[in-house]
Amino acid sequence: MTDTALPPLALSLGDPAGIGPELIVQAWADRAAERLPAFFATGGAGLLAQAAAVHGLTVPVTRIDHPAEAPAVFASALPVLGDADAPYRPGEPNQAGARLALASLTEATRLAVDGQASGIVTGPIAKALLAQVGFVYPGQTEFVAAACGVTAGDAVMMLAGPQLRTVPITVHVALAEVPLLLTSDMIVRRGRIAAQALARDFGIAAPRLAFAGLNPHAGESGRMGSEEERIIAPALDALRAEGIDATGPHPADAMFTARARATYDLALCMYHDQALIPLKTLDFDAGVNVTLGLPIVRTSPDHGTAFAIAGQRVAEAGATIAAIRMAGEMAARRAHG
Amino acid sequence: MTDTALPPLALSLGDPAGIGPELIVQAWADRAAERLPAFFATGGAGLLAQAAAVHGLTVPVTRIDHPAEAPAVFASALPVLGDADAPYRPGEPNQAGARLALASLTEATRLAVDGQASGIVTGPIAKALLAQVGFVYPGQTEFVAAACGVTAGDAVMMLAGPQLRTVPITVHVALAEVPLLLTSDMIVRRGRIAAQALARDFGIAAPRLAFAGLNPHAGESGRMGSEEERIIAPALDALRAEGIDATGPHPADAMFTARARATYDLALCMYHDQALIPLKTLDFDAGVNVTLGLPIVRTSPDHGTAFAIAGQRVAEAGATIAAIRMAGEMAARRAHG
Repeated sequence: MTDTALPPLALSLGDPAGIGPELIVQAWADRAAERLPAFFATGGAGLLAQAAAVHGLTVPVTRIDHPAEAPAVFASALPVLGDADAPYRPGEPNQAGARLALASLTEATRLAVDGQASGIVTGPIAKALLAQVGFVYPGQTEFVAAACGVTAGDAVMMLAGPQLRTVPITVHVALAEVPLLLTSDMIVRRGRIAAQALARDFGIAAPRLAFAGLNPHAGESGRMGSEEERIIAPALDALRAEGIDATGPHPADAMFTARARATYDLALCMYHDQALIPLKTLDFDAGVNVTLGLPIVRTSPDHGTAFAIAGQRVAEAGATIAAIRMAGEMAARRAHG
Repeated sequence: MTDTALPPLALSLGDPAGIGPELIVQAWADRAAERLPAFFATGGAGLLAQAAAVHGLTVPVTRIDHPAEAPAVFASALPVLGDADAPYRPGEPNQAGARLALASLTEATRLAVDGQASGIVTGPIAKALLAQVGFVYPGQTEFVAAACGVTAGDAVMMLAGPQLRTVPITVHVALAEVPLLLTSDMIVRRGRIAAQALARDFGIAAPRLAFAGLNPHAGESGRMGSEEERIIAPALDALRAEGIDATGPHPADAMFTARARATYDLALCMYHDQALIPLKTLDFDAGVNVTLGLPIVRTSPDHGTAFAIAGQRVAEAGATIAAIRMAGEMAARRAHG
């Protein structure tokens, strides 16, 4: 693998009624200007061609039977693997579309696990619809983790934008549950996985991890909550004992100024909005969702299906392009060190 | 009051060992360039002169016996009311300094309540030290509210920067307590006070209030927490029934992009960091803390005493200058409509 070109990236369609298809054709159209690595879509040849037409883009679509055909095709056409397809009905999600989304995700993941794709970039899905067609996972991250044989808790979601990287330690749970779920062990495991991934996948040899407190002002020495002293500080001690550069718990509100951001490589936050508010405030259109701790490379644009604007030439491909580029860079680092 | 000049603003020193004094002298030095309204400090003539010298600023200090003397003095010297003073020992807080801070705050507040000052701008204090000298309030906001005869719960903290205004509905409580404390009544009262204040003090006739959800993705229709449906939505219905433009509950992570911010005048958040993270991420050096719902005008720079950098010519007066300007504008709107 060291001297040959990398396998192409596999892009799953996401829900075909969302903005996923139009983002794929836009990314392909911008491949040269954005210097994107070769990729192919898993399914959707017909609907991707229609999405391109709706967007006014000239995107020849070429069906391929094997990922290895993609790099040669990529310069002149968007390679699409396999026959799975559906009519293009932007803004009109249905179960047939959800089945295609699931098939596309399943195939892309399988190819990455097999090594035929150097990584996957997953398009946005509608979780409620997917559940109706038999998807039993809370989200794509958990699906991909299971396909890789990784415990869901050890697949760590990182959000990365041009100005900030964040990891939410707890993710899709009610705010009231956060203080009940948070443990030192969870913080240590996520911190360790994040540190390893920043070194292996992002080329940051000694990553600086900054941990937020849970409470206002990081609890002010126990005046407003004791989680900092009981749970977070011991976890940071344990990480430092492993040689990891871990600081905090920091008052969350002061962690995301330009000056503060310059002092760390990754902000680890205790709950979803603590991580996502600053990320989206700073980098709304370019946020990439990366799954750390997997044997395969997986990224995703950090936004939803946006059914309301699908097919209207409004959706911007910035996050998808950033996700493709990041997946390519991660794959290259893994392959070539 | 309509045709005569407004009374001057009263500035409390804050803890004299913090950055409060040097910010006051910097603001005075910049009064012309920043077109600031006339103000005076309550006490600290000697230490303000020393702070100016340490900062390398030429700031003549003139003792006055009555606020009415301040406007005439202001052009050529920093007016200081009264004899209360202490040695200038930046970075070395002690109880004598805390007593001076409390006296200065008490006097400034009294003058505003009496109408001799058109508003107050409070410098940063050290709460723990103030508590040692008999201060029984959680913070200056509650002290000022009590001096005005307003229930602490009806004195609403707003943080205002150049790009964003936010109100945290709950403030200095542990995160675990937030879901237990939040009620529809509290949201309605804070929303009503905020709407009235934006109209009266900020000249926004029909303010647009955007309310955040409590949970990730605003709960996703109850999938992650029920507070949106049980508590927040009914409160917004009640506010709309009063004719207030209230939207939400919105997913908090998507509320603070430039595009989202353009759709509202004020973001009302369910807890401290939900409001403070985006504010400080966007406007770290210029955030103003405003107390809404009081009979007097009160603003404050939104930062702490910063003992660690006091007296080192590092502290920037941007937030203090913004707080003075905002207090002056609020007072003018109240006086002249």
